[in-house]
Amino acid sequence: MEDRESRYERIVRLRSDPSTYYALLGMRVEGLEEGKSRLVLPVEKKHLNAGGVVHGGALASLADASIAAALATLMDLEREGMITVEMKINYLAPVRDGQLSAEGKVIQKGRSIAVGESCLYDSSGKLVAKATATFMIQPRS
Amino acid sequence: MEDRESRYERIVRLRSDPSTYYALLGMRVEGLEEGKSRLVLPVEKKHLNAGGVVHGGALASLADASIAAALATLMDLEREGMITVEMKINYLAPVRDGQLSAEGKVIQKGRSIAVGESCLYDSSGKLVAKATATFMIQPRS
Amino acid sequence: MEDRESRYERIVRLRSDPSTYYALLGMRVEGLEEGKSRLVLPVEKKHLNAGGVVHGGALASLADASIAAALATLMDLEREGMITVEMKINYLAPVRDGQLSAEGKVIQKGRSIAVGESCLYDSSGKLVAKATATFMIQPRS
Amino acid sequence: MEDRESRYERIVRLRSDPSTYYALLGMRVEGLEEGKSRLVLPVEKKHLNAGGVVHGGALASLADASIAAALATLMDLEREGMITVEMKINYLAPVRDGQLSAEGKVIQKGRSIAVGESCLYDSSGKLVAKATATFMIQPRS
Repeated sequence: MEDRESRYERIVRLRSDPSTYYALLGMRVEGLEEGKSRLVLPVEKKHLNAGGVVHGGALASLADASIAAALATLMDLEREGMITVEMKINYLAPVRDGQLSAEGKVIQKGRSIAVGESCLYDSSGKLVAKATATFMIQPRS
Repeated sequence: MEDRESRYERIVRLRSDPSTYYALLGMRVEGLEEGKSRLVLPVEKKHLNAGGVVHGGALASLADASIAAALATLMDLEREGMITVEMKINYLAPVRDGQLSAEGKVIQKGRSIAVGESCLYDSSGKLVAKATATFMIQPRS
Repeated sequence: MEDRESRYERIVRLRSDPSTYYALLGMRVEGLEEGKSRLVLPVEKKHLNAGGVVHGGALASLADASIAAALATLMDLEREGMITVEMKINYLAPVRDGQLSAEGKVIQKGRSIAVGESCLYDSSGKLVAKATATFMIQPRS
Repeated sequence: MEDRESRYERIVRLRSDPSTYYALLGMRVEGLEEGKSRLVLPVEKKHLNAGGVVHGGALASLADASIAAALATLMDLEREGMITVEMKINYLAPVRDGQLSAEGKVIQKGRSIAVGESCLYDSSGKLVAKATATFMIQPRS
């Protein structure tokens, strides 16, 4: 298994690829620890729905990404891949501007199933959404 | 309350605003009926994660949007607004290309709470994700 | 793999064991088809919460059981076991009496993950809850 | 609004009614604080499924009950009632015996919607399930 530094570098590198969904939304990894991640998303006009608040899908995207990044810190990325089985998010407060941050955390990692959660905060530190996600871990073919 | 045609036109018009999250993702409304919607999202490179499959957040966004559009057909949009309370999505198969379509449907609309679901299909008609969402309906202030 | 009849008989027999949670709640299997089940639960005073309506946990139990029974029809019960990974239920209307019925259905069965859903109805045929559940399928050790 | 002591007493009293679902399952309130609850359920044979593990529905019941009890500590029970809108539970480890405990917590309480979560532990203190639930708060009619 790669060492911790290599895993973290790989996670950030993959998620900094300008061609991917991360770049489309403007998400980026701000910090990683074993089983934990911190992602940020600076809110722009493009994230808003017609009502002027950040679209639920953008928050769901950030939550999903933060839990996946947290899980990646615990995986052997050379040999294992993950797929999201399901995700659930509760929206607690509308967001209109500022910067969103997501704190992803793995709450259980078994051999083939992992579960994590994410707390999303607005610029003032208010909890604006909370999500749970289940992943399947698979050997890379 | 507006008549049906006006409501449908308004739903499509709002969701065609090029400044919004709909445009960022490339989602559009293809059809509306009372309590139902059909949205499409042509898959592009920008929707993919580093593994080459459509990011779960993009599917969650399409699902959320399709349920909201279905609910909008049953609302008095002049006087009522909706906010997403929570959403849950199961991912059933990876998607790499082609066009995603989402069929949103309201399964219950009470005075203040509505629940809907969405089935997402790939170009071949395979079910690739299924979502449920809860909305709160509020008088516009 | 056992034939269909044997599988169905085994499913009903296991779930008719008077020592189990099925009996505690008074649930029973009324019908099975490939990938589908119908369970019933006659509402009694013991299922009610202090407010006089059926406790959410009783509805969740019936939903979970109906999806598991539907999945069992597709499994090789000699060689495979299932565990519930997660469940999500939306409560659509309160229930006070009569008989609950649950129609469980598998919407996807892969090698290791299966997803199903259940619609719960009251005696008048009204949809009172809708649930989704994810299962992991494992070889019996 | 009742004072804190009266609210707590009322919550315990209601949930100790021997005719209710609480008693059927053998759940009881062990502790209450503002926005928090601790419930226990001593595992008996009646809670097990045919596979010898506690049925997912029993865990879902305990989780739902613990979040409702936590929410009740923040409500004016003379004037307000709650109904569960939806619940989601992830099962993290099977339970065969011992005593389950559930720590319920409110993570947001608005005027009409409240969201809470619950962590379920086995006798050894291992996290065996985690749940989230959404409630609607309504004036008593």
